[in-house]
Amino acid sequence: MTLTRNDFVELDKNDPMAHFADEFHIPEGVIYLDGNSLGAMPKKAMARARKVIEQEWGHDLIKSWNKAGWFNLIEKLGDKTATLIGANKGEVIHCDSTGLNLHKLVAAALDMRPDRKVIVMEGSNFPTDNYMVQGLIRQLGRGHEIRFAEDGEILGAISDDVAVVCLTHVHYKTGHLHDMDAITKKAHDVGALAIWDLCHSAGALPVDLNGSNVDMAVGCTYKYLNGGPGSQAFVFVAKRHQGTAVQPLTGWWSHEAPFAFERDYRPRTDIRQMSTGTEPILSLAVSEVGLDIFMRADMDEIRKKSLKLTDLFMQLIEEQLDGYDFKIVTPMQHDRRGSQVSISCNNGFPIMQALIEAGVVGDFRAPDIMRFGFTPLYVSYVNMWDAVERLRNIMENGSWDRPEFKQVGAVT
Amino acid sequence: MTLTRNDFVELDKNDPMAHFADEFHIPEGVIYLDGNSLGAMPKKAMARARKVIEQEWGHDLIKSWNKAGWFNLIEKLGDKTATLIGANKGEVIHCDSTGLNLHKLVAAALDMRPDRKVIVMEGSNFPTDNYMVQGLIRQLGRGHEIRFAEDGEILGAISDDVAVVCLTHVHYKTGHLHDMDAITKKAHDVGALAIWDLCHSAGALPVDLNGSNVDMAVGCTYKYLNGGPGSQAFVFVAKRHQGTAVQPLTGWWSHEAPFAFERDYRPRTDIRQMSTGTEPILSLAVSEVGLDIFMRADMDEIRKKSLKLTDLFMQLIEEQLDGYDFKIVTPMQHDRRGSQVSISCNNGFPIMQALIEAGVVGDFRAPDIMRFGFTPLYVSYVNMWDAVERLRNIMENGSWDRPEFKQVGAVT
Repeated sequence: MTLTRNDFVELDKNDPMAHFADEFHIPEGVIYLDGNSLGAMPKKAMARARKVIEQEWGHDLIKSWNKAGWFNLIEKLGDKTATLIGANKGEVIHCDSTGLNLHKLVAAALDMRPDRKVIVMEGSNFPTDNYMVQGLIRQLGRGHEIRFAEDGEILGAISDDVAVVCLTHVHYKTGHLHDMDAITKKAHDVGALAIWDLCHSAGALPVDLNGSNVDMAVGCTYKYLNGGPGSQAFVFVAKRHQGTAVQPLTGWWSHEAPFAFERDYRPRTDIRQMSTGTEPILSLAVSEVGLDIFMRADMDEIRKKSLKLTDLFMQLIEEQLDGYDFKIVTPMQHDRRGSQVSISCNNGFPIMQALIEAGVVGDFRAPDIMRFGFTPLYVSYVNMWDAVERLRNIMENGSWDRPEFKQVGAVT
Repeated sequence: MTLTRNDFVELDKNDPMAHFADEFHIPEGVIYLDGNSLGAMPKKAMARARKVIEQEWGHDLIKSWNKAGWFNLIEKLGDKTATLIGANKGEVIHCDSTGLNLHKLVAAALDMRPDRKVIVMEGSNFPTDNYMVQGLIRQLGRGHEIRFAEDGEILGAISDDVAVVCLTHVHYKTGHLHDMDAITKKAHDVGALAIWDLCHSAGALPVDLNGSNVDMAVGCTYKYLNGGPGSQAFVFVAKRHQGTAVQPLTGWWSHEAPFAFERDYRPRTDIRQMSTGTEPILSLAVSEVGLDIFMRADMDEIRKKSLKLTDLFMQLIEEQLDGYDFKIVTPMQHDRRGSQVSISCNNGFPIMQALIEAGVVGDFRAPDIMRFGFTPLYVSYVNMWDAVERLRNIMENGSWDRPEFKQVGAVT
């Protein structure tokens, strides 16, 4: 049966998560399907920033390192994120960026497997992960190599010369979801360690790091977790590895006694060894606001709505845009995808620009991918209908075919 | 002639920089002498945060990477900082922390001197620098070693086996100032590279990196530059080394074509190679507000007032507190010190706590240093008189000798 707009209005009326949308600011007239790039702003972000700036910085000044808990914010936020990714208290902190944290983890992991030289990675992954490991290998100069494998080839690439398997759980471009459990198991079977990048899965779907016996992980807070532009990443090290996994960017926050100001480095033996030095506090503190919304949500409910939104979006694309050059590249199977839908299209770039101008914000990834991310906390069912309707109008009247939409160079 | 309070009131009346104090918020009744730990809040910080949160994040969302210049903010701020430290446009960016930037620079410099194994550092330096280099050495595993030398021993420690001389310009604890020019020259004479940490000199006194032919430098923005708690550090690489000095934390922002999403890393050949990945934008943007105040100030005037403030403070300590256990450890000579005065005192910890309670905010560094930092932009002459007066009262009535002031554990 063909869907109508009313079907979507009804779904919204019966959506137990609909009230969460009130906690975010979405600009008037905008359908925001780019939460996988930059999550929307929680309305309470401004109040938190005001508190940090006027009260903590302006009035309390250095006292805030203790009084406002600045020094321990990295652990406080980590304990909250832990509940979303199947980790325990004391296994996660927020600090630095995803890439820096990945450098730390891979360096620590390679030290734990000194006789092995191979790191399995996905060549088509978001490149910062590959670049960081390439930089590390060059720096170590000990003959490590990356064995690149694509989706479908990964289990086969994990042989007993592998030190570390380092993969991104959900692919940034296609949205495909790796089988964390099976791949981690295979890594362990051959004696390797498994490091997962959760940039496109934390907050997007339930993740169970300890359930899958994952060794280490990193992830981003400014996408599905709505932490604010560039807000600090998180890093996970399973309890069993803490004290053994020692990262090399050994700033004073990772010292056993940071305020003793000793001359020589002594590593902490807890998760804080993964920190480096003084964090940009304003960004860190404001990122807690997005996280706190998740503390009141249920990841299973989020996943249920996410799959329904994406199922419907794909169905509408196929129903309403049949005959145009759109090919859905995200897997249809639920257990094979995250919370995004990627569509390949030769004119994807100008079409996406036209769509953004029409108020439907997705983004484009070269060479031909139109990318739509779905954050169930603030995306509604009727958004699906309206987004596809606006895309259909653009295709029907050809309004994407304008010179100003073809100027590449946008950071989207 | 003995000084009176009125002398200080007169000095303030004739201070051409006095108006800058209006641009900062200092809590009622507080004399803030801890700008060398956390600079005071510029009053416009809140407006900038509001713009970033409500307009750029909340309303414009991902468009802000271009429209609000988020992606190029690291260079925009760097070009401003360059004017304060004797660097040129395109030689400085803001990113990451001081420690991380030091790791990058020392790693790059060691690669440029592959046959040398020695790094000269000051053992009593703020430890994060030493820790970072110790971590790097351990990671490289190629037999590098740190040759620790203290003030007065440094020139003698620079021999022709030295790869890198890595020092902090002004000492965090004693406030002594190294001779950047002479030490850099000696480093170059033996074929070594000179890396300077400007955490306690950027914004505190005129620095002339290119005038001294310095190779690379790092520094902090949350102390004298008033950038906000933990705001991003800056990193300088002299133009002549850009393209040759390649740092190993190779995230996507340092790639030659970051938006081509290539599989393999290709280093940029400009200063941006020193960046890593997505920066916490809110902290970064707000830190520009403090920097902009400096763009209207004159570093020579700042230095003149700083020296006068510290001269007077030391004179008052000696006049008013004669007979107590206070010993000024900061050198008296102008060319041997930064913008802080450090006083050793056996009961320094509880005395500092009592002083803070009395509204004079300095800090304490183990084992016995009471530390006072002087930011001429917002510290007045009469603050000198009143601070020492309050300290004298505390000593005379013994009010520091209370159990609650002796509980160590504060992060100050």
